[in-house]
Amino acid sequence: VAAPREQQQRHFRIGELAERSGVSVATIKFYIREGLLPPAPVKTGRTMGYYDQAYLERLVAIRKLRDEHYLPLRVIRAVLEERGDAPLAREDAEMLARVAPRVLERLDPDRPKPASRAELAARFGVDETDLALFEEIGLLGGASGWSDADLELLSALARAEQAGVTRDRFPAVGIGHYVELLGELARREVRTFMHATRGVPQAELEELALRAIAVSEPIIALVRRKLILRALREELHRTKEEP
Amino acid sequence: VAAPREQQQRHFRIGELAERSGVSVATIKFYIREGLLPPAPVKTGRTMGYYDQAYLERLVAIRKLRDEHYLPLRVIRAVLEERGDAPLAREDAEMLARVAPRVLERLDPDRPKPASRAELAARFGVDETDLALFEEIGLLGGASGWSDADLELLSALARAEQAGVTRDRFPAVGIGHYVELLGELARREVRTFMHATRGVPQAELEELALRAIAVSEPIIALVRRKLILRALREELHRTKEEP
Repeated sequence: VAAPREQQQRHFRIGELAERSGVSVATIKFYIREGLLPPAPVKTGRTMGYYDQAYLERLVAIRKLRDEHYLPLRVIRAVLEERGDAPLAREDAEMLARVAPRVLERLDPDRPKPASRAELAARFGVDETDLALFEEIGLLGGASGWSDADLELLSALARAEQAGVTRDRFPAVGIGHYVELLGELARREVRTFMHATRGVPQAELEELALRAIAVSEPIIALVRRKLILRALREELHRTKEEP
Repeated sequence: VAAPREQQQRHFRIGELAERSGVSVATIKFYIREGLLPPAPVKTGRTMGYYDQAYLERLVAIRKLRDEHYLPLRVIRAVLEERGDAPLAREDAEMLARVAPRVLERLDPDRPKPASRAELAARFGVDETDLALFEEIGLLGGASGWSDADLELLSALARAEQAGVTRDRFPAVGIGHYVELLGELARREVRTFMHATRGVPQAELEELALRAIAVSEPIIALVRRKLILRALREELHRTKEEP
């Protein structure tokens, strides 16, 4: 997402950059030496210059990766490279245009006869309002009806309900977090995949994409468990610190 | 994460707020009426006032939820309520302090005899450098050795390797994305869970927490598949738009 034009044209001295980002001038210079940040975009001398809003945002992103996620610098550098709204390289875009339609079709195959929302709500014990919300945020359904993947998701939600994770207790906000953060993860995974598989023949790429999605599911589940443990430890630690 | 003090003390007029956030003045006023944003923190008249950095950040968060994630306003409101670095309410903090230690113990139970990094690397066909990186970012291991959860994660990574998602092709950056975004998800899930289960007796809460983690795993996998499809469609769409 581009910042509004007015904002992009603001420029800061390194001291103001430090103040706004919460990163010391010495550390900014260290990041520049290490290649995590480019030199000042607007040079006014050999070691002087002006920094812009995009630079500030990149610096804040580095600070967060360091402080909140404890990532080592070499991982931060790689994370930053994978991000960004730069368009895909031409070779990646061409490959994507050839492979994506087949992957889309195989991951979310032909939709069965349309069922009404009321029928699905009754069959899976889901509230019709919730169904409407899930459709609205693009998690369920589509112009041509309901796919097998939709029905699988409804089953999984019904099992959660039976296990006591009830929709009257757990608000739709939980799903909002999933859409926001797993959506960002999915965007980065698609990009990482396209970069990682350069040179793989098209015939293999489709199978590899489907296998990669499948084998990463248990990894995601296990990593999330670890991170829930970390979040619990952090909350416990905070709880102890407060009076 | 608190902004540095200098930044928190900056105040903006509504026009500057609009300019910096990329949201129009009319829309900001609409959000205030709808209760997504509080009125101006510093009032200088009935309809005039100054807005601070925290306000700007909340507004930018709303804009992103709206533009990037297509969330309806009522979901955005709920998402914003679950976020924030505000400490847990006293009742939630007290319950967490009682329940978390048992959940931690059951989710990541007793660690077996320490194995050397070299032994594990050989057993799971993982690079020792990768093992060291995973330890460094807190995904594997700990002071007292390796737990069953660690060995499960190593197995899942080994299966990915066999399926062609090889570590020589896919860089550690993929794991960095998981740690960043699933870590943020885990933090929000812990908070949502504490809010959602107020009034549940302690004896039930521990079981409910473990069940909630288990039943949400297939939901996460299915939602992520949907969002990979969305990301693929978006990349295809972008690819077509470019010359």
